[in-house]
Amino acid sequence: MGTTQLETVPEPKYWHLKTVLTEALDSEFSVGEVLPNERDLAARFGVARATLRQALEQLELEGRLQRRRGVGTTVAPPRMGVAVGTDPHAWPGAGEDAWQPVDCATAVPPAAVADALGTGRDEPVHTVRRSRVSHGRPVAAELLYVPVSSAPDLSAIDAPSGAARARAVLRELQRLELERRENAVELGSAGAEDARELDRLPGSPVLVVTTRFVAAGRTAALSVATYRADTCRLTFGDSGDVEIHHGPQRRAS
Amino acid sequence: MGTTQLETVPEPKYWHLKTVLTEALDSEFSVGEVLPNERDLAARFGVARATLRQALEQLELEGRLQRRRGVGTTVAPPRMGVAVGTDPHAWPGAGEDAWQPVDCATAVPPAAVADALGTGRDEPVHTVRRSRVSHGRPVAAELLYVPVSSAPDLSAIDAPSGAARARAVLRELQRLELERRENAVELGSAGAEDARELDRLPGSPVLVVTTRFVAAGRTAALSVATYRADTCRLTFGDSGDVEIHHGPQRRAS
Repeated sequence: MGTTQLETVPEPKYWHLKTVLTEALDSEFSVGEVLPNERDLAARFGVARATLRQALEQLELEGRLQRRRGVGTTVAPPRMGVAVGTDPHAWPGAGEDAWQPVDCATAVPPAAVADALGTGRDEPVHTVRRSRVSHGRPVAAELLYVPVSSAPDLSAIDAPSGAARARAVLRELQRLELERRENAVELGSAGAEDARELDRLPGSPVLVVTTRFVAAGRTAALSVATYRADTCRLTFGDSGDVEIHHGPQRRAS
Repeated sequence: MGTTQLETVPEPKYWHLKTVLTEALDSEFSVGEVLPNERDLAARFGVARATLRQALEQLELEGRLQRRRGVGTTVAPPRMGVAVGTDPHAWPGAGEDAWQPVDCATAVPPAAVADALGTGRDEPVHTVRRSRVSHGRPVAAELLYVPVSSAPDLSAIDAPSGAARARAVLRELQRLELERRENAVELGSAGAEDARELDRLPGSPVLVVTTRFVAAGRTAALSVATYRADTCRLTFGDSGDVEIHHGPQRRAS
């Protein structure tokens, strides 16, 4: 293939391969099936290993493939719809909350969190770690930052750390009157600790949901939740589970 | 560095480099500044080019860096908060809609879309293309699929295609009584056409927002909107703009 031709093609080489692979996945493979190894696949489609790997990465990004150490590359099941609470009047841990408190520490948060909370950059805050499991698998990890002023009576509690203290902080928080909550979603990459909890490699793409809980005109708590981007589709609103899997190919109109 | 040591380190090599680079970005560079070329950076940090590239890719994923052809790698401005409408009673194109109709065609949609709409897999539907610009830059591209039965009187309209026809389809849609809308967000990669519209390379990570519009108990329209993941933070709810930039580093608790 001449260089000139490549230069006039607006799409990278692996892009065409991805389309071909997608069709092969639809017609020849079923969910959970292990793909042939990279060498065999590259030979079958007549491409370099590097090109193949790029196409596989794309398909992983789109949730079509899963790559796991010791297993290989498998065809992914459809992404799970995971509801992100948008009830403007629900505190973390209240009602039908899907999160499990894991631990709690009092530590200085990252600067961006301190700024959002309006606490000093050297001021320790309660940091509640929670995890969320769906269908028996970890889907999300959360750090909930709670200024000490939002849980002033906590010193009376015995538990210095652990899930018991996490629950105590949440209980204190629920005493405040919640005005509203604000959600934002963005792309991020899993830090080392989140990666461990989510059973992913550090740096794996994640969907980061930041929620600010506003009470008495100020930010009473800030949640930074990290969802697995490979297996999760986040749904917003009451029923919110839109049954479109694998980010449908958009057709040229 | 011995192999044994590497094997006990749970984090990939580029991960540490990413942390070091992040600190350098915070202390030495300002928004918009062009980074030194890869060779110089690799030399400065004493790493292989491949390791450097992985770290740069991570930082791009997290919205800290932008890589553009002809410009090089620059320090990214904070991500824009882009509001995703969740008003359960607003049709596309109604009220304070941020989208511009671009085109409209009648075509057979992807199979997953046909299934969600409940139309036959060979049945053409109105396909409205809209684009969304924020601060003078394209931030999202949308395909809105409207079954012919949701816009039955459209044959009376002259415009066979283009923005005029798109507006006509939206007007027809707004005559129906909207019961609710359901939103979902997931990770995807930009298709060729979206990539062109969003000024990105095909395969770039995007946030795909799927919205199902329910009227008279059935799906009256389905929107698949593709947002740039590098520059956008999607906000949900009324004011929803959470001022946390760059997906704050989560601290070990």
